Amino acid sequence: MKLLRYGPRGAEKPGLLDSEGRIRDLSGTVADIDPAVLASGLDAIRQLDPATLPLVSGDVRLAEPVGNVGKFLCIGLNYRDHAAESGMAIPTEPILFTKATSAIIGPNDEVLIPPTSRKSDWEVELGVVIGKEARYVPREKALDHVAGLCVVNDLSEREYQLERGGQWDKGKGCDTFGPFGPYLVTLDEVADINALGLWLEINGERMQTGTTADLIFDVPFLVHYVSQFMSLQPGDIISTGTPAGVGMGMKPPRFLEEGDVITLGIDGLGEQRQQVRRSVCGA
Amino acid sequence: MKLLRYGPRGAEKPGLLDSEGRIRDLSGTVADIDPAVLASGLDAIRQLDPATLPLVSGDVRLAEPVGNVGKFLCIGLNYRDHAAESGMAIPTEPILFTKATSAIIGPNDEVLIPPTSRKSDWEVELGVVIGKEARYVPREKALDHVAGLCVVNDLSEREYQLERGGQWDKGKGCDTFGPFGPYLVTLDEVADINALGLWLEINGERMQTGTTADLIFDVPFLVHYVSQFMSLQPGDIISTGTPAGVGMGMKPPRFLEEGDVITLGIDGLGEQRQQVRRSVCGA
Repeated sequence: MKLLRYGPRGAEKPGLLDSEGRIRDLSGTVADIDPAVLASGLDAIRQLDPATLPLVSGDVRLAEPVGNVGKFLCIGLNYRDHAAESGMAIPTEPILFTKATSAIIGPNDEVLIPPTSRKSDWEVELGVVIGKEARYVPREKALDHVAGLCVVNDLSEREYQLERGGQWDKGKGCDTFGPFGPYLVTLDEVADINALGLWLEINGERMQTGTTADLIFDVPFLVHYVSQFMSLQPGDIISTGTPAGVGMGMKPPRFLEEGDVITLGIDGLGEQRQQVRRSVCGA
Repeated sequence: MKLLRYGPRGAEKPGLLDSEGRIRDLSGTVADIDPAVLASGLDAIRQLDPATLPLVSGDVRLAEPVGNVGKFLCIGLNYRDHAAESGMAIPTEPILFTKATSAIIGPNDEVLIPPTSRKSDWEVELGVVIGKEARYVPREKALDHVAGLCVVNDLSEREYQLERGGQWDKGKGCDTFGPFGPYLVTLDEVADINALGLWLEINGERMQTGTTADLIFDVPFLVHYVSQFMSLQPGDIISTGTPAGVGMGMKPPRFLEEGDVITLGIDGLGEQRQQVRRSVCGA
């Protein structure tokens, strides 16, 4: 299934994408796509015949496909080529940091560069959404705790992240720096989690081209690993790291500017498109 | 006002502490003490006569005083003596990291040392709870965005934090590592936010004795500062750092063991008491 949320910010409704790519409304079955539904409502949705659900017509906004996310965890330097372009060592175990949940936006919402930012950067990533509490889970059972996958753009302000006092979170949680979606694609729809192509373009120019085959630490290991340090709850996201091709790694570095358009996608998980604008204080 | 939540985990009710130290039930006025109530429900509570509210009798569990916290942000090395004992430099601007919201427990709930932990440590801290969205706020208006203050124990696993791959979050978000409460004390009840004594004891032995007069970056500055990097939402917590006296700073270092009892408090904000137990995998 491809689950989604649509409608104005703060008034989103649950839906799913049918086999012909049309949005069907799920309001009659669940109130939202949220942690409670991921934990215990997916079977009820699975038993529905999408053709019996109301069609959603018109040009609706797509929101982040899961509401009320509790934790947005990210893995750093999880592709060798990205570690190399960042001038950092290949990690011997996963690097874990946190993205503020207030940074989450829909897949096609506007990205706002903070007023003082000079180094806002892009990162296409495979996102893993938890469906069942995970606490000290062994690797071989880790996927039982995953509801599905999604596209994440782990936008990053490099000066805030690396030059302003030591911990990365400062440059990862700016408002709008967490586009997530368009869909939550349940695991049964994913052919091979270890062979998903991912890409990102700025103004139509290809910047990142990668595959999850190159992940240093794969999805089952990451769920197992993180669950040793903190419990994972339904709705939590683990964003698994980005391949080479970020702005910081270019010579000379290139960062986002007002007017840029970011497009990105992952095989079978859909695409995102963000227009970039500079924020102003108080706006 | 001293706002609180009480009752079994997952079924907490809102309450307040009256002037005689008794719990009064607020269920008739608000459904919970949560972000929505902090944003727009405090005036309604303020207008109540506590004597008209139902008394809560018996020995009830106190929960964390705010439910559904969105972000639990922490400031590192914000007291000179703690930076010195940690062998780290005095920061030139605040160090920001994140505690997993799934680590939050009530003030007197049991603290669980993770199965593989050898370096679980304590940190008494002043917690600041946001009441009104803060985005690029100037320092002089920062306190307008604060609902109140509370006691936080920023429990920390030092090996996970410092020896397992670079970012502190890995050692800060273990389940039960965020005792918070007993009360949310609204700002109007705090005599001088810059002169609050704070203390922590292990098995009755004094470990930490400090005062917020020694904060390197004070509360208004921190709210202003963090709001430059991400918006702060009602219910978000900023824990402002710990004074000297943590286990890592002792010679030789001392860490938590099963059976230890942690007590801690801050002038006017109440006290916490946690019994320490070692967790087992799967429990």
